Amino acid sequence: MREIAVFSGSAHPDLAEEICAQLGVVLQPVRLRRFANDCLEVQLQSNCRERDVFLIQPLSAPVQEHLVELLLMLDAARGASAARVTAVIPHYAYARSDKKAMPRVSIGGRLVADLLVTAGASRILTMTLHAPQVHGFFSVPVDHLHALREIAGHFSERDIAGAVVVSPDLGNAKIVLDDEIARGTTIMELLAQLREHGARSVRIACTHGLFAEGALKRIASQPEVIEVVCTNTVPIPETERDPKLHVISLAPALAEAIRRIHEGESVSALFGASA
Amino acid sequence: MREIAVFSGSAHPDLAEEICAQLGVVLQPVRLRRFANDCLEVQLQSNCRERDVFLIQPLSAPVQEHLVELLLMLDAARGASAARVTAVIPHYAYARSDKKAMPRVSIGGRLVADLLVTAGASRILTMTLHAPQVHGFFSVPVDHLHALREIAGHFSERDIAGAVVVSPDLGNAKIVLDDEIARGTTIMELLAQLREHGARSVRIACTHGLFAEGALKRIASQPEVIEVVCTNTVPIPETERDPKLHVISLAPALAEAIRRIHEGESVSALFGASA
Amino acid sequence: MREIAVFSGSAHPDLAEEICAQLGVVLQPVRLRRFANDCLEVQLQSNCRERDVFLIQPLSAPVQEHLVELLLMLDAARGASAARVTAVIPHYAYARSDKKAMPRVSIGGRLVADLLVTAGASRILTMTLHAPQVHGFFSVPVDHLHALREIAGHFSERDIAGAVVVSPDLGNAKIVLDDEIARGTTIMELLAQLREHGARSVRIACTHGLFAEGALKRIASQPEVIEVVCTNTVPIPETERDPKLHVISLAPALAEAIRRIHEGESVSALFGASA
Amino acid sequence: MREIAVFSGSAHPDLAEEICAQLGVVLQPVRLRRFANDCLEVQLQSNCRERDVFLIQPLSAPVQEHLVELLLMLDAARGASAARVTAVIPHYAYARSDKKAMPRVSIGGRLVADLLVTAGASRILTMTLHAPQVHGFFSVPVDHLHALREIAGHFSERDIAGAVVVSPDLGNAKIVLDDEIARGTTIMELLAQLREHGARSVRIACTHGLFAEGALKRIASQPEVIEVVCTNTVPIPETERDPKLHVISLAPALAEAIRRIHEGESVSALFGASA
Amino acid sequence: MREIAVFSGSAHPDLAEEICAQLGVVLQPVRLRRFANDCLEVQLQSNCRERDVFLIQPLSAPVQEHLVELLLMLDAARGASAARVTAVIPHYAYARSDKKAMPRVSIGGRLVADLLVTAGASRILTMTLHAPQVHGFFSVPVDHLHALREIAGHFSERDIAGAVVVSPDLGNAKIVLDDEIARGTTIMELLAQLREHGARSVRIACTHGLFAEGALKRIASQPEVIEVVCTNTVPIPETERDPKLHVISLAPALAEAIRRIHEGESVSALFGASA
Amino acid sequence: MREIAVFSGSAHPDLAEEICAQLGVVLQPVRLRRFANDCLEVQLQSNCRERDVFLIQPLSAPVQEHLVELLLMLDAARGASAARVTAVIPHYAYARSDKKAMPRVSIGGRLVADLLVTAGASRILTMTLHAPQVHGFFSVPVDHLHALREIAGHFSERDIAGAVVVSPDLGNAKIVLDDEIARGTTIMELLAQLREHGARSVRIACTHGLFAEGALKRIASQPEVIEVVCTNTVPIPETERDPKLHVISLAPALAEAIRRIHEGESVSALFGASA
Repeated sequence: MREIAVFSGSAHPDLAEEICAQLGVVLQPVRLRRFANDCLEVQLQSNCRERDVFLIQPLSAPVQEHLVELLLMLDAARGASAARVTAVIPHYAYARSDKKAMPRVSIGGRLVADLLVTAGASRILTMTLHAPQVHGFFSVPVDHLHALREIAGHFSERDIAGAVVVSPDLGNAKIVLDDEIARGTTIMELLAQLREHGARSVRIACTHGLFAEGALKRIASQPEVIEVVCTNTVPIPETERDPKLHVISLAPALAEAIRRIHEGESVSALFGASA
Repeated sequence: MREIAVFSGSAHPDLAEEICAQLGVVLQPVRLRRFANDCLEVQLQSNCRERDVFLIQPLSAPVQEHLVELLLMLDAARGASAARVTAVIPHYAYARSDKKAMPRVSIGGRLVADLLVTAGASRILTMTLHAPQVHGFFSVPVDHLHALREIAGHFSERDIAGAVVVSPDLGNAKIVLDDEIARGTTIMELLAQLREHGARSVRIACTHGLFAEGALKRIASQPEVIEVVCTNTVPIPETERDPKLHVISLAPALAEAIRRIHEGESVSALFGASA
Repeated sequence: MREIAVFSGSAHPDLAEEICAQLGVVLQPVRLRRFANDCLEVQLQSNCRERDVFLIQPLSAPVQEHLVELLLMLDAARGASAARVTAVIPHYAYARSDKKAMPRVSIGGRLVADLLVTAGASRILTMTLHAPQVHGFFSVPVDHLHALREIAGHFSERDIAGAVVVSPDLGNAKIVLDDEIARGTTIMELLAQLREHGARSVRIACTHGLFAEGALKRIASQPEVIEVVCTNTVPIPETERDPKLHVISLAPALAEAIRRIHEGESVSALFGASA
Repeated sequence: MREIAVFSGSAHPDLAEEICAQLGVVLQPVRLRRFANDCLEVQLQSNCRERDVFLIQPLSAPVQEHLVELLLMLDAARGASAARVTAVIPHYAYARSDKKAMPRVSIGGRLVADLLVTAGASRILTMTLHAPQVHGFFSVPVDHLHALREIAGHFSERDIAGAVVVSPDLGNAKIVLDDEIARGTTIMELLAQLREHGARSVRIACTHGLFAEGALKRIASQPEVIEVVCTNTVPIPETERDPKLHVISLAPALAEAIRRIHEGESVSALFGASA
Repeated sequence: MREIAVFSGSAHPDLAEEICAQLGVVLQPVRLRRFANDCLEVQLQSNCRERDVFLIQPLSAPVQEHLVELLLMLDAARGASAARVTAVIPHYAYARSDKKAMPRVSIGGRLVADLLVTAGASRILTMTLHAPQVHGFFSVPVDHLHALREIAGHFSERDIAGAVVVSPDLGNAKIVLDDEIARGTTIMELLAQLREHGARSVRIACTHGLFAEGALKRIASQPEVIEVVCTNTVPIPETERDPKLHVISLAPALAEAIRRIHEGESVSALFGASA
Repeated sequence: MREIAVFSGSAHPDLAEEICAQLGVVLQPVRLRRFANDCLEVQLQSNCRERDVFLIQPLSAPVQEHLVELLLMLDAARGASAARVTAVIPHYAYARSDKKAMPRVSIGGRLVADLLVTAGASRILTMTLHAPQVHGFFSVPVDHLHALREIAGHFSERDIAGAVVVSPDLGNAKIVLDDEIARGTTIMELLAQLREHGARSVRIACTHGLFAEGALKRIASQPEVIEVVCTNTVPIPETERDPKLHVISLAPALAEAIRRIHEGESVSALFGASA
């Protein structure tokens, strides 16, 4: 079996380190260089030849920087004769650009899927796409996991008798509200409604905790909110941290998926993923 | 003949306006939207159907933002049934990433060429690529112009008897030093040498005036430098402006090239371009 | 301007004839041959060279026959040097196969999109895709129309004060129930609910009236149902006809879209289509 | 070595079972679903990840159903991360559409070859193509076997001294009459000629026994015909069975070819195939 | 309408000149350069931009030189922004490599078809392919003409009462012997047979008069041969000329096909070509 | 691990034999056939199925013959189900055609790179490309070695105190003069200059010893030239041999690179190659 080689872009090195620790492999070094003209250059600093390469990079802000960096890493891995290159994108931000709501707009979700393949991606590993149809934008195999088990597991440890779980991510077809919290507008509106209905304590959960423009502070400052749960698909900015925030690590799940992809074992058998 | 439709990304709207003025056409509106998750969306706001579309966007800093924006514009134009889409990239910054100087590095110049085609570019119009071989990175036709005539024309109007012209861009095969000034390190070293040789007044010229990290101030503050000449392939940051700087507009040249591309007239006949 | 040439597959020749009548052009003849081994062969029987070819074929039952027939027509048109080939697919049935609801299933919506392009489609004209994301499955331009205006126009001529319009197709993002009626199970459940809420007369509308397995009879036999409205994107089987059924012709809309595509005029300007 | 996984479409499950029995592997389950709108969906019901997948499906009638089913199976296998997918097509019916006998006809043999690759076929295993040039229609490797050895072996066990073997398939370059019997028109004409030449007992052989429109009954009812030999590349409809019919199973040959493809052994060394 | 621009490779400039004379256009100049390392470089010496370019080059000996030259011309035309590039290949020599007669042989007919498209051919115009299936090797439109009318016209002017016309090229499906005479072995064998049958005067015809290794001399020296007819799809080497040889020019037919391709008129309507 | 299979074209069988001897494998037989019409056919005469195939063919004169032969070998290897096909091109002659020095010229270096991939090359192994940018012309991984270590090693065994080494190939970025000697014009000019500067004994070195048109004789006849060193990337014509010529074999380096590519070991670690 070909050896595994895991590299991380600059978007979320902590997650990559944690995944590698779970896998029992060393995170391989990457050199990222920015030229005076603002162009990026990537060097993968250990042998990729005939290796089963995994490149970890969620499309967190700054998205364009992280996207181009990932494209360059893919190009470098392919050019370095990797046997297979899997782009591990825990948060595929462009999934929200999935249709033409107006004439002559870009469909970023499809475009970025094509760019990743052009740059050298043999396959994709991702978490909770905004819409399940986005899976079909890719022309290479996609392992599409969700965090339902991890989030449900978290609440099963709490005493939640009598509490209301407002989760934007408990299954795509059922009570789905949203897969991510960015500005938090939807959540704030929902809280207002819950308040009217007499909710006294609220726990909030989502997969992708983007928390832009002070969203976490705004939500956490609501007195009835006693917990905000998200996963670590994207790094939580230090300025957005809050005592009420609980971050569930998906490193074990992603590591297990990577191991199964590498070993050729079924991923769906464990995760119920549509892979 | 199909109608022309010119759009500009956010990198250099002034140049686009000037080109349209030369062409006698209206610059068509573009709506650029940034979502809470930092993803971009582009809408071309006038009919592209069966039009001969030109998208103007130099890869100036922030390069990654401008690159992804251009890719989204290309996708939108193709999806909107443009008859032909020409990416007008007066400064193709990634041309400097043109070889593997070390193992396992990305070759950004080739990768970005492929990305542009994947996104929908039918052809490319560019100025003074860092190396002439970069032309061969593209799988679509490239019109590769240079600014030699414009820069030479500038100096022919000066009294330069007895002066030394240190130009990084007077022809690719001859006394070429460099096509762009970024940090200006090369120029500063050259000035030191010229000083040793007794040069008293120096005029400097290049095509792409990137002037990163205070480069223009540093160069212009040298007493023997009496003029720094560049073109407007990239916008000059206000903070880098200097009385000694002279910017030659390439809008007339680019407009004429666009007109000839649109009309099917020879571009090389006029510019001596390798197109 | 290149001439237009419209051909019809065997799925819905009436619609094709009606579209051509609207356009004021002659429907060009096609010879469909079935060999003893059950293979199909298509011959387009008038000159396609440098023509702007439109092939009309909804994916109505038998879907596989009509799909392969359309692929053969595309191949024939491309091989016959058509300047451009638009597949006019008023009902893109495979749009419902738009995600991986289970592991190791085909995503037919994306696959068929790729097959159409492989066979020679330069572009697609379609009506009311099951999910708007399906637009992004295509790598060629798509004009995606909807029938909202036609259906709304129909009801505006009725006296519907006090009546409830249960429409599965009045806008994708709002009260959407469904875009098509196949077995009618959803509608029957809805009728039961409406009955409980005291609805006395119900008018039903959808874009794609598939009416499989006696669905129309079943629905129309409900006493409170006073009208079932659909469009002619697919032919209504004679055995499914019912006095309560009203079929709105989309031939004028499709003809106008074809004319605008051919002339290079904006389609979205008229239809509000996401094209 | 990657494990083997064999799936069968609905065209010829008996042959697939027999091949698997020869290989000593279990035929993996496939779920075929037909929606109310007549679209098909395929689910491969066991792990394909990094497996060497073989999909068995001759293009027998109904050809279009079987073709689209095979395309969906290919898509599912690729999407499920198969290491390699071989389409085993014992009868490639579209091989007869191999040229443009008239202007503006489809060349189905080439088109279907491209569709198979688009859908995900890494390679093809087939028997006795109608013309050897059809091999060149594929852009992926083809193992093209013939049944000469099996058919010749059959007759070597008979006492055929003084008898005439009229075989449409004893080698492509020599006395070839035909590779398949569909309506049997050619055979009937030949029988008439043989009768004139005084033939008293005739044995007939072909690879693909399609026997459309009562062909077998018609041929077998001729008194001088004492045996009709074909192989099981396609299932013989029960209604076409006849005591004079002898069906040679190619399952051993196909199983051995699959084993050699899987193990990387020479196929031509055994079969003399042009592979 | 886009203007026409006709260029010739070095294989058969006389034919190109004659075609241009028929078309009433000037043959555009080409500069072919051979470097010290034996590499070729082609420069098309007049504007190709938005032109309808035709490149005339039969694959006559030395075939490899003429093939690579044609590929370079295609590359130059595409890079020079031609609107459309038609490779006019009156003799497609690699058509004879159309199948795998042995294991692990190249299928040159398909490979060269792909190379031509890779190099930039938008379409192909050719004469009398060795097998009609070779048409299907191309992924771009092919106009496939034959010389039946010209050859038949020639004989209709002769007094051929009582004479036998042995033509290797009078229709693909009927009395076809061969489409070309290379070493002439087949013809010599045939002559021997005709002699045995008492033929006293023989006229021979073919499309592609390759006449390798003294073939024409050998054939013409047979006393009963009174005429050898071929066309000018390839240049006849001076050393192979013979008084008995009659060369029919296909320049009028090719010029008319080019005119019709350029004007978008039906080619098959005139030639009965399968285009 | 897949087995290795090495084949040689007709360009340089001695080098291939030497490489195989170093690798300890047998050079597999190839049958090259030239038809009467001058077309080539290649048959690889041992099993390629699932093998790691290496095809050795420098583009030495006659370049076009050797190029087409290599393309046919690639096609044959791919069609014969090779697991991977590496084109080993010690001298990539078309690298000199790397830019558009004039309008409407072919860029042969890029075109041939694309042709190799179209024909089936999975990867490339080459020596000392004329410009490092040519690496970026390929869309498949390239191992780009140089001969610096071998050439330097040669001189380190000589007593070269006080001598001047004029090498056109000692590193791409430093004193580079040229990577090959073809007609030797540059070298002759240089010798004249060295003579003026009083050089009394000169040793000359290059990677690719093409020595066209008597170049070696001309150089070696200069009295101050005491040694001409080249490698065996191309065969030295017997007529060009000279006592002053010293040919360094690169077979050990190429064999070690092939072994490392096959085993998945780092090539750059040993060679400092940009691979």
